[in-house]
Amino acid sequence: MNGAQALLRTLVGAGVDVCFANPGTSEMHFVAALDDVPEMRAVLTLFEGVATGAADGYARMAGRPAASLLHLGPGMGNGLANLHNARRGRTPLVNVVGDHARSHKRLDAPLESDIDAVAGTFSTWVRRSLRPADVGADAADAVAAAGAGGIATLILPADVSWSDGAEPADPVPGRPAPRPGPEAVEAAATALSSGEPSVLFLGGDAVREAGQLLAARITAATGARLLCETFPARLPRGAGLPDLPKLPYPPEMAIAALAGTKHLVVAGTTAPVHFFGYPGVPGTPVPDDCTVHVLAAPGEDGVAALEALADRVADGAEPQLLEASRPELPTGALTPRTLSAVVGALLPEDAIVVDEALTSGVGLAELTSGAPRHDWLSLTGGAIGDGLPMAAGAAIACPGRKVLGLQADGSAMYTISALWTHAREQLDVTTVVCNNGSYAILEHELARVGATGNGKRAGQLLDLGGPDLDFVALAGGMGVPATRAETAEQLADQLRRALAEPGPHLIDAVLDR
Amino acid sequence: MNGAQALLRTLVGAGVDVCFANPGTSEMHFVAALDDVPEMRAVLTLFEGVATGAADGYARMAGRPAASLLHLGPGMGNGLANLHNARRGRTPLVNVVGDHARSHKRLDAPLESDIDAVAGTFSTWVRRSLRPADVGADAADAVAAAGAGGIATLILPADVSWSDGAEPADPVPGRPAPRPGPEAVEAAATALSSGEPSVLFLGGDAVREAGQLLAARITAATGARLLCETFPARLPRGAGLPDLPKLPYPPEMAIAALAGTKHLVVAGTTAPVHFFGYPGVPGTPVPDDCTVHVLAAPGEDGVAALEALADRVADGAEPQLLEASRPELPTGALTPRTLSAVVGALLPEDAIVVDEALTSGVGLAELTSGAPRHDWLSLTGGAIGDGLPMAAGAAIACPGRKVLGLQADGSAMYTISALWTHAREQLDVTTVVCNNGSYAILEHELARVGATGNGKRAGQLLDLGGPDLDFVALAGGMGVPATRAETAEQLADQLRRALAEPGPHLIDAVLDR
Repeated sequence: MNGAQALLRTLVGAGVDVCFANPGTSEMHFVAALDDVPEMRAVLTLFEGVATGAADGYARMAGRPAASLLHLGPGMGNGLANLHNARRGRTPLVNVVGDHARSHKRLDAPLESDIDAVAGTFSTWVRRSLRPADVGADAADAVAAAGAGGIATLILPADVSWSDGAEPADPVPGRPAPRPGPEAVEAAATALSSGEPSVLFLGGDAVREAGQLLAARITAATGARLLCETFPARLPRGAGLPDLPKLPYPPEMAIAALAGTKHLVVAGTTAPVHFFGYPGVPGTPVPDDCTVHVLAAPGEDGVAALEALADRVADGAEPQLLEASRPELPTGALTPRTLSAVVGALLPEDAIVVDEALTSGVGLAELTSGAPRHDWLSLTGGAIGDGLPMAAGAAIACPGRKVLGLQADGSAMYTISALWTHAREQLDVTTVVCNNGSYAILEHELARVGATGNGKRAGQLLDLGGPDLDFVALAGGMGVPATRAETAEQLADQLRRALAEPGPHLIDAVLDR
Repeated sequence: MNGAQALLRTLVGAGVDVCFANPGTSEMHFVAALDDVPEMRAVLTLFEGVATGAADGYARMAGRPAASLLHLGPGMGNGLANLHNARRGRTPLVNVVGDHARSHKRLDAPLESDIDAVAGTFSTWVRRSLRPADVGADAADAVAAAGAGGIATLILPADVSWSDGAEPADPVPGRPAPRPGPEAVEAAATALSSGEPSVLFLGGDAVREAGQLLAARITAATGARLLCETFPARLPRGAGLPDLPKLPYPPEMAIAALAGTKHLVVAGTTAPVHFFGYPGVPGTPVPDDCTVHVLAAPGEDGVAALEALADRVADGAEPQLLEASRPELPTGALTPRTLSAVVGALLPEDAIVVDEALTSGVGLAELTSGAPRHDWLSLTGGAIGDGLPMAAGAAIACPGRKVLGLQADGSAMYTISALWTHAREQLDVTTVVCNNGSYAILEHELARVGATGNGKRAGQLLDLGGPDLDFVALAGGMGVPATRAETAEQLADQLRRALAEPGPHLIDAVLDR
């Protein structure tokens, strides 16, 4: 058995049975081995950033890693931005990167580059398989390392892949997340029961249903406020769950949201900092006189910590849960607000929303909070271009569920070829492009950083017009049926039809400008 | 004056007056400063790989660096593949990467990553500006470092950009490339005059016109054969220049091309190695009993070395030059061969050909060798997705010349949004997509690496069908007028019209399958 076959069999044996791939010459034996290991589903992407973003979306929904298959250093570079998002979301991901044959590595061939150094910047685990006999164990270790919530990069020289002498290895059992000690629980209990203004701040695994319900009992009992990190990897939402507002993105709004807070208890994440530094603005919205109490750090068992805390302070308390409610279907001009209302009115039960709407999504949280239960995937690392790929991965992880991608126009273009994968795999993904013809977020940011001279030449760098992007044509060119909506009624009509029909769709929602 | 303004003024003062940009929040002051420094032309791209590839193409044609402007580590990751190509082509490039404000850097905000480590893998020079007062000198040093033939990465924290106290700096004079010593010239002269089978192997700057003419005199006088590296950054070609065949890409053909050679004299490049390692194939096409003589290493003055060598061995010898000749316009099915003949028949005087045709380009070299003078840009580093961006950069560098992009379908998708920049800047670029519906090169490579099991599942990873890519629709979605050609006559007709009309065009050349 060669290295590639042992790798595939080991991955499948450890539960990694989907691979998002953009292979090259050095990965040809991996590709050939797909015919020997039919349990592995390989999904072709036309760009590596689609492969890594899809692996990110897949794992967020499946709860176990997918593999990405990338070609040498430049291919890994193309995948880096969404590997960054995966790292920030603590997504488990097995990142297989092919490299030159061992004897070829030292020849400085044109595609030679320092894969190991780059991989080290986003991976929690990096290993280079040195012999075919090592591949099985290396792959098993990679899956275990990814399972702890991170990117495990396995670098596979071509000749290690093509040479015989390899064997699959058994899965390596994962280690359970450490449970925070009693002193952390006690400190949080004391803080939340102090009577001073307090916030229970959730992130990571603590925002899943179990964590939300425990947290809502705790805040019901203590009077603390409940908040969620700005960009959680996967947030269950909707009627029957607690109201769990996200900390706002704009620094002035985040500062307002935490103003007066004396105790911030964090579970599953860290204390918030602003996305960017701004002139004259502190780096974090946490007030100077607020004490931060770490109930559970990222990687610790946040749900167990919340359970212990609830036992301590919330005996008998009931969580307050959201009633079912939907906005009216709006009419008239298509704006971020009416777009959000259409989504809130029509969001199907059990949908997966992939949110890269950026500025066009301002009303979404409010107008969907009482919708039927759904999952919400956010841009964890701020590297735009994760939305369309994540939608592909989420759809493959959850074939019975509708995926709704809410996608800003500018950021759609980073990984637009993901639409081809939507079409080839006939994924149940409806993409709504929020087409405002600009990098609108940067127009806000230009003002926010106090940049003067917002003249014509600067403005041209934030404007996506001249020519306008026609997403109906782009989608059609990649096999995704698409329509254009220019009013709220048109969007509602087109979204209802797209959601009713299996397979991929795109709606170019041209916002009123 | 703030750091951003000083940076722009210093760059412009040093002759860097084009910037290919995909900015984010941390680059907003750079954007704002564009209105203060109108001498800097900023070109918006919708993806960072377009910015870096355009900067690569620009510098190859302009002979001086452009700047790229990228957003933090993930944006730099998106630009990495074409920075890799630029590195391999020794392209001068000033790579400006914005980073978090200094006070924000330590807060581990979502977009935080190790920019410096990644930049170090492709840059010959990396510096982080620590204070506004440093920016001018740092930028001047960056331009000088790039000028030596490499990527200078200047990392600019947002607050260094927005804070006052900066001043532009004067250009730092570049150092001339070192001239090889007389012993290298003597060894090359002895080898080429030995009467044994010898090859003069050119690359880098030595393949420009002056080097070609000197080399052709040397081979005329000594009887040595003349060869060129497989993927030169910029190769002047056509009638009136010597016949300078490229070393073939396929290892078996490269081995045949050098079989029996006893002396390989290299100028401007290194001795060739195969692109990849293959089972049972040596890593280099240079025969075991062939002696390699380095006349001029990359970065040395190859033309001066050839001049000294010509003085030594080719006194009075005349170079043999190619006569003008064009193939007949072909008729019938569209194949790589007839596509190449159409290009050979119609290539305009002084055209710039950007060649990322890969397997569809097999007849091109032969069928264009007697065409009117033109420049040929190749994929120096093997990282596909440089073609459409390079075409943009070349067109901006040479506004009076026609740019013809010959673009494989699969690799077009990596940076397809470059077409939008073609349209926005109304660049004189005609792109011919060689649409064979597959990663054809990988079908060859799968066989070449001896991968067995070339079954249905493996085949699906090399096939771009299901759905077919419609490049007419894709181009139209980004504002580039496009047509489809399915016969040689249609291609000839459409190419003639596209080349006659200013502005961007795309022809989806659907090859007979």
